[in-house]
Amino acid sequence: MDKIIAIQGAKGSNHHKVAIDFYGANVPLKECMSFDVLVDSLLDNSAEFGIMALENTIAGSIIPNYALIDNHNLHIIREEYLNIHHHLMALKGQNINDIKEVWSHPMALLQCKTFFKKHPHIKLVEDVDTAEVAKRIANKKLQGIAAIAPKIAAEIFDLVIIEDEIQTIKDNSTRFVLVQTTKPEVKADANKASIKFQLSHKRGSLAAILNAMSDCKMNLTKIQSLPVIQTPWKYSFFVDVTFDEYANYQKAISIIEIMAEEFKILGTYKNGR
Amino acid sequence: MDKIIAIQGAKGSNHHKVAIDFYGANVPLKECMSFDVLVDSLLDNSAEFGIMALENTIAGSIIPNYALIDNHNLHIIREEYLNIHHHLMALKGQNINDIKEVWSHPMALLQCKTFFKKHPHIKLVEDVDTAEVAKRIANKKLQGIAAIAPKIAAEIFDLVIIEDEIQTIKDNSTRFVLVQTTKPEVKADANKASIKFQLSHKRGSLAAILNAMSDCKMNLTKIQSLPVIQTPWKYSFFVDVTFDEYANYQKAISIIEIMAEEFKILGTYKNGR
Repeated sequence: MDKIIAIQGAKGSNHHKVAIDFYGANVPLKECMSFDVLVDSLLDNSAEFGIMALENTIAGSIIPNYALIDNHNLHIIREEYLNIHHHLMALKGQNINDIKEVWSHPMALLQCKTFFKKHPHIKLVEDVDTAEVAKRIANKKLQGIAAIAPKIAAEIFDLVIIEDEIQTIKDNSTRFVLVQTTKPEVKADANKASIKFQLSHKRGSLAAILNAMSDCKMNLTKIQSLPVIQTPWKYSFFVDVTFDEYANYQKAISIIEIMAEEFKILGTYKNGR
Repeated sequence: MDKIIAIQGAKGSNHHKVAIDFYGANVPLKECMSFDVLVDSLLDNSAEFGIMALENTIAGSIIPNYALIDNHNLHIIREEYLNIHHHLMALKGQNINDIKEVWSHPMALLQCKTFFKKHPHIKLVEDVDTAEVAKRIANKKLQGIAAIAPKIAAEIFDLVIIEDEIQTIKDNSTRFVLVQTTKPEVKADANKASIKFQLSHKRGSLAAILNAMSDCKMNLTKIQSLPVIQTPWKYSFFVDVTFDEYANYQKAISIIEIMAEEFKILGTYKNGR
């Protein structure tokens, strides 16, 4: 039997697009209405893999998803950068003046802020997903309600696109990762890694780690500090590095393991850019 | 005449609390229904100062606000860390079963996710503010609608607190900053700074900067990388440092100015912790 991929949201969502890119159009899906549910389906083995958005060029890191991966010891095995296109869609025959409310995922609402400023008669309502709303509009024949979703959702659910490309910043790249609960073998083409460690608030401690990484020819592509909750003056760092030689990477992590606390590899995989 | 402070949100909001902490209970306020409007009122001189939330322990940095400060060359002159308490409030006489919808700011809705999971009959609706909803419920006598707001809002608008402390993570500290358009004199008690610079994706470039900072006895309290939109392989870094000696800080920035591109001081002020 084919392995089941848990996605955040419904068919027609951006997570669905990424699943298709990874596994083809007939990928067996489990639709999850939150990232928490997605992680639960990995933990109870009702899905083998999960696809999670991790950061985008507008809002930065999706910190709660980093926390989910970290707290449940998930492993990142693959990544993809997807350009996000938001389209406003509704039942056929309706136009922008017919729309009273738009229901969508908070992130999609945020990314279309400027468009909705020009249409103050439309009420913004948080919903669990982008594409699931498109489905609901179609199934329940909801008049006056619009969804924000990718083009694929309008095709699947036979809706009309009222306005296309309503996102404020046109160049909106989102990074998705494929995760699983078991620790995988590192593949031969791996040239990127996501790691996490803690440091005490001691002067130069981060510089020392970055020096070691640089000495081992690691390139930093992302760094993010987060205060450790309820532990003043202690910081977690989520760092992504790319590298040419796996041996150099192994050397780097063996050094960081000694220098930092709570060191953990979230995943070693092929660079998606 | 007293100077006017622009706050995000209405009276009774957390931004109002911070304004009171800075300028006392009778501070002349301008209520702004978005951070964009807040910045506009600074630019058109209808307010002298603005108060903006910049990061919290749960969701991390509020990247769009960093962008506003950066793009409009605002100056950070003060900061405060506030422990956030979210309370569910409605018209007197109502209880949790009477509530059909909660209207609130997306960040407040996010921070109370776990509570609302236990009450799936309540629809979450994005609104511009926390306290402004409390005011609207009071003024329009809205039945079945609840607000999420600080205790001060229930007092001001005479509402009942249906559930207190509904935030998922009880230790939720949010960092607020006071900003203005003109460049201030640095005060004698300044021991913290927020800086921003860009680096090309060259191995060791960040490590070199952090080494220089460490040599000048700067302590890093925050670091955040962001890809520069539409410029692949270029990264912006937002960094906060604390220091004991102002002379050391001046030395550090004169070095970073040479080593990094697009270097900018967002503010030099007294550590709020």
